[in-house]
Amino acid sequence: MKNLSTLVSPQSIAVIGASPRPGSVAGEILRNLKRCGFSGDLYPVNPKHDRIEDLPAFASIDALPEGVDSAILAINRDIVLPAVAACGERGILNQIVITAGFKESGKEGIQRERELQSLVERYDLNLVGPNCMGMITSTPTTRMNASFSRWFPQGGQIAFVSQSGSLGETLLECFEDAGLGVSLFVNLGNRAGLTENDFLAHLEQDENCRAIFLYLESFADPQGFRELCERIVKTKPIVVLKAGRTEAGVAAVASHTGSLASPDAVVDAFLAQCGALRVNTIEETITALRALERGVLPQHDRVVILTNAGGAGIIAADACERVGIDVPALDETTRGELASFLPPEAGLGNPVDMIATAGAADYENGLRTALHAADAAIVIFRPPLVLPDTPEEVADGIVRVSREVPEKPILVCTLSDQETEVVRRLRAAGIPVYAMPETAVDALHFFHRARDLRAPKGADRAPKAPDLPAMRKIVAQALEERRSGLTFDEGARILEGFGIPVCRYAYADDEKKSHDFVAEVGYPVVAKIDAPDLHHRFELGAVITGIANPAELADALQKLRDVVKAQGLTRARILLQETLSGRELIFGMDRDPSFGPVVMFGIGGTFVEALKDVAFAVAPVTLHQASSTIQAIRAFPLLGEFRGETAVDIDQLGHMLSALGELSLALPEVVEIDLNPIIATPDGPAAVDILVALHAG
Amino acid sequence: MKNLSTLVSPQSIAVIGASPRPGSVAGEILRNLKRCGFSGDLYPVNPKHDRIEDLPAFASIDALPEGVDSAILAINRDIVLPAVAACGERGILNQIVITAGFKESGKEGIQRERELQSLVERYDLNLVGPNCMGMITSTPTTRMNASFSRWFPQGGQIAFVSQSGSLGETLLECFEDAGLGVSLFVNLGNRAGLTENDFLAHLEQDENCRAIFLYLESFADPQGFRELCERIVKTKPIVVLKAGRTEAGVAAVASHTGSLASPDAVVDAFLAQCGALRVNTIEETITALRALERGVLPQHDRVVILTNAGGAGIIAADACERVGIDVPALDETTRGELASFLPPEAGLGNPVDMIATAGAADYENGLRTALHAADAAIVIFRPPLVLPDTPEEVADGIVRVSREVPEKPILVCTLSDQETEVVRRLRAAGIPVYAMPETAVDALHFFHRARDLRAPKGADRAPKAPDLPAMRKIVAQALEERRSGLTFDEGARILEGFGIPVCRYAYADDEKKSHDFVAEVGYPVVAKIDAPDLHHRFELGAVITGIANPAELADALQKLRDVVKAQGLTRARILLQETLSGRELIFGMDRDPSFGPVVMFGIGGTFVEALKDVAFAVAPVTLHQASSTIQAIRAFPLLGEFRGETAVDIDQLGHMLSALGELSLALPEVVEIDLNPIIATPDGPAAVDILVALHAG
Repeated sequence: MKNLSTLVSPQSIAVIGASPRPGSVAGEILRNLKRCGFSGDLYPVNPKHDRIEDLPAFASIDALPEGVDSAILAINRDIVLPAVAACGERGILNQIVITAGFKESGKEGIQRERELQSLVERYDLNLVGPNCMGMITSTPTTRMNASFSRWFPQGGQIAFVSQSGSLGETLLECFEDAGLGVSLFVNLGNRAGLTENDFLAHLEQDENCRAIFLYLESFADPQGFRELCERIVKTKPIVVLKAGRTEAGVAAVASHTGSLASPDAVVDAFLAQCGALRVNTIEETITALRALERGVLPQHDRVVILTNAGGAGIIAADACERVGIDVPALDETTRGELASFLPPEAGLGNPVDMIATAGAADYENGLRTALHAADAAIVIFRPPLVLPDTPEEVADGIVRVSREVPEKPILVCTLSDQETEVVRRLRAAGIPVYAMPETAVDALHFFHRARDLRAPKGADRAPKAPDLPAMRKIVAQALEERRSGLTFDEGARILEGFGIPVCRYAYADDEKKSHDFVAEVGYPVVAKIDAPDLHHRFELGAVITGIANPAELADALQKLRDVVKAQGLTRARILLQETLSGRELIFGMDRDPSFGPVVMFGIGGTFVEALKDVAFAVAPVTLHQASSTIQAIRAFPLLGEFRGETAVDIDQLGHMLSALGELSLALPEVVEIDLNPIIATPDGPAAVDILVALHAG
Repeated sequence: MKNLSTLVSPQSIAVIGASPRPGSVAGEILRNLKRCGFSGDLYPVNPKHDRIEDLPAFASIDALPEGVDSAILAINRDIVLPAVAACGERGILNQIVITAGFKESGKEGIQRERELQSLVERYDLNLVGPNCMGMITSTPTTRMNASFSRWFPQGGQIAFVSQSGSLGETLLECFEDAGLGVSLFVNLGNRAGLTENDFLAHLEQDENCRAIFLYLESFADPQGFRELCERIVKTKPIVVLKAGRTEAGVAAVASHTGSLASPDAVVDAFLAQCGALRVNTIEETITALRALERGVLPQHDRVVILTNAGGAGIIAADACERVGIDVPALDETTRGELASFLPPEAGLGNPVDMIATAGAADYENGLRTALHAADAAIVIFRPPLVLPDTPEEVADGIVRVSREVPEKPILVCTLSDQETEVVRRLRAAGIPVYAMPETAVDALHFFHRARDLRAPKGADRAPKAPDLPAMRKIVAQALEERRSGLTFDEGARILEGFGIPVCRYAYADDEKKSHDFVAEVGYPVVAKIDAPDLHHRFELGAVITGIANPAELADALQKLRDVVKAQGLTRARILLQETLSGRELIFGMDRDPSFGPVVMFGIGGTFVEALKDVAFAVAPVTLHQASSTIQAIRAFPLLGEFRGETAVDIDQLGHMLSALGELSLALPEVVEIDLNPIIATPDGPAAVDILVALHAG
């Protein structure tokens, strides 16, 4: 793990390329550093000037004094590499490279970036960028605007890591408008050195940060990202705004799983597995961060709504219903207590309508009383025409209750965008304030989701195949024969090796074998041609079901042999299978260029094909994640007891999905798997059709 | 139709109960009327004072001069009725009753409201309220704040009809914050006199209004509302914020349709049939109204995104994809033109990334060029650090293009909540401005939806039954026999009378009948007990399918006779049906206490029962609406060509759903219908099970 503490909180910074000329980026950064009150030493480097911004300038990096710990480089791209090296030689190991013209700008740039990466490795640099807008620290001990952003955020507890510079600055500006404080901002740029993962590792330990926000367009290292997130979300919520369109999706669109996986669905699944909260819009980002910036999460789900405006209470309750938050009726004791001080016209349901006359004491006592019976409160307070107290007194009462029960979130809704003294007082006390009731409800929903993500889930996965070398040998053999897929039997042996059950089957190579098999499983049986190079099997009549007696069997086998001949199939064998009946499921696996193996689950037949009702998970898949994936499909209720069929064993399906992930990780040459269908019989599920595709040798 | 022109734009207003005492509601209204600059005459009425607010006061209503056209009453509830009558006697026919204590407050209040309604009828009053906060007009010719709201809205083209006072005022305040102008605001209160429908009828003709917004908790007269909306949306968009929880839902939860219909789903269906745009949150309301206030809608769907901040462009394009708006690539000509003046680093895809250096000329020329190839534009403009021109010059360029192509909406996104001079200039030119790109995309989506709602659709419905008297006779006969349901045969005759096909069937009353039927339709057949009082038929073995030969038939008939005997069923007959195979559909009808007959459509079996994947429409249902309803279920793709089955004829299903609506309107004693299933065979659909429930006599 990289130690980034000096990078984010340096003692001295060399600003390479600073110039007094207007429009000079390095000059602007130097001014920003001075303006924000950076307390360390600043060393402008520019051979053309003696003094810049009232500071002595240095003619070159070599001319800098000893002990400078950080450098910002905003210079012509052609001199970046020697400057980075010169800094490295001088022991300046923290570097922020603002300059563009690297891998984002064609062939030469790609080469330049490669050389930059060599320098990062040679000197073991903590390098941000290139092609970035810099970094900002705003904590009680460090004020550093090492960027060309005009916005120096008010200090706060949110760390913000942004892949994009332009959107990063936009979001900083939005945060400023919204009154959200930021402890650290970094624009990663091209990530030639440090990535989001390095910053995550740093932030885990950073006491100035209680919540982490990332804007990403791609993941530098998804598996590393996941491991870090899984650990960090136990103490700090992670919110991710992920742009959907720039990520290359699951590549092989020709495959079944691939054709069903929108890149975005895989990102969704991946972030859920990470334990991160995905947001889709800037508004959602602000709503979530405003709720989570203190890091306090409610223990249970009960919410009470208090209002002095009936209609807004209804709007809030409606919004709760829409997102699935229960607004339970208050118990008799609580109602009695409320009735003892609220006017008789007040509504004592939930929402508690304290009517327009509610004053500071009503709000304070009402909130205190109601929170005895709830885990969180949405308080709607719009100062009415006539109020016995000042609005600020109402705010102060709410703040007092909030201090008494810091573990219960109180969200205030003012029904106005205006940034009044009431809003300022509440926010200063760490109470999230929203204009609209629906937004407060969305925020509460984020609280609940972050709380659920924090709960321990277990990291158990399906066991690895006990005899992995044998599995590897099957694959190796097929590759050696230059085959692009496995036979049914090969696939079945691998699946069974990983604990994924397969129906009973045998090859009808001779009469005795067929006879023995039928004697074992009984009629009816299925006969099909097993030939990896055979497509459109149903259309060709290569699958015959419901074979009920020896005569039909003989007939079927003859028909299949004719098909083999007519199609000129080599390596084809005829396979007999038992007939299974039950619910049809689909399992699949495909490799995503960014995430690696992605497993898929769906309910077979119409649901998958017409409705694309499938869910994904990125391997490795824990048993808990597998179970969540299975429950994520819309048709999940169909797996329960239904029309006399017994419920499907979800735990077992979860094991199988997790096992499919293990298989994919253990056998990297397997590029695609389709188990369509797996039939869930009352005795358990079993794969009936197996397609295993290999790397085209 | 009521003439409301004097009500909304009076010459003279008597303010009954006005008092100089602080906290006097009528006094506040009088002050509001003066403050806003009402130009007509004001007559405070109060026996205790000579002058109020510098105006001569009148001791009683009788003492008022001749010719006063309007009155506002905010007096003790016990004297409201005589005051209303006194005004009526004096010919003051426009009255706004602020006073509460009517039907919302128990038995006495209900009686009081009834008497108030008699007065409305006796004097033919235009009466708003009671229990309301009043009315506001803000047009070039009339400025009237006849309410106790502090907010006198800036004039504009939105008319706002609110059932709730408290939420009405809240929304007015939000509109003020958002810079939305309002021409008329009225709080309907208890609707003892005027309802939303009266105001809709008025607004249709009102030239000051280009878009209508309603906040409703229930509908005074849904059918009237619908007729008005259907007509008005051809020229003025109607936006409805409907609170979901206060409406009583479809009553009979025990019934099939009833148990599936959430009240909210029916409201959704109803508003869609009306052609209204439903919004669910205050934010959505503002987004929609900001887009629609000018009433200009784009002709086609092509949208171009221009930006000087790449990340924000991606966010906008992502948001378009989420709501289903296509962001097409620009054609070569347009790209070429853009390339001729934009810098080489600019991205000429869609979004067009004009990069941070884009100045006023780039924005103006870029927008003009791009709009040649598009029907609407989202322009993202965040003033960068260094800009050759002032931000206002950029705004002026956008305004110029907007004037050249007024029919193409331009939505500007500033990435900031700040109300800058740029925002003011754009809004003044009628250009909707949003902070966030996602909100601009939501707004564009409202444009598209409003445009689609405006398109002519045809009002054709399924024809009425040619022999309606015969249908009525069947129902009357059953009611006379005190039956709560119809037999299969009775139901089938009514369905067929309305053009809804039924499978072939016959009663197995004797051997010959059975024989003849089987000879006609062929084996296999179905036999079942037809007894309206028989429940749990499947469990009791009262349905036998797949009867394949005479022996099985004899056996089945005997079994069913045994069930009839064992259950002690009277009036039971044994029914034979042909065996149909195809896709199972469900049609249903139930009566909603507010909307009347509601029809339902779903795909049979698992989809309806486990997934509640059903859609509703309120009768009458036009053929177009019926077709939309059928397409609204998630599983709709299953009705297409699928796994070798031919596509189901959607037009025919639409006819049947529309016919079910006609049936329900024509036969009001039919309270519930379940056609579960209707089987869609390759030869067309036919009802196989028929349940028709009647009003419990």
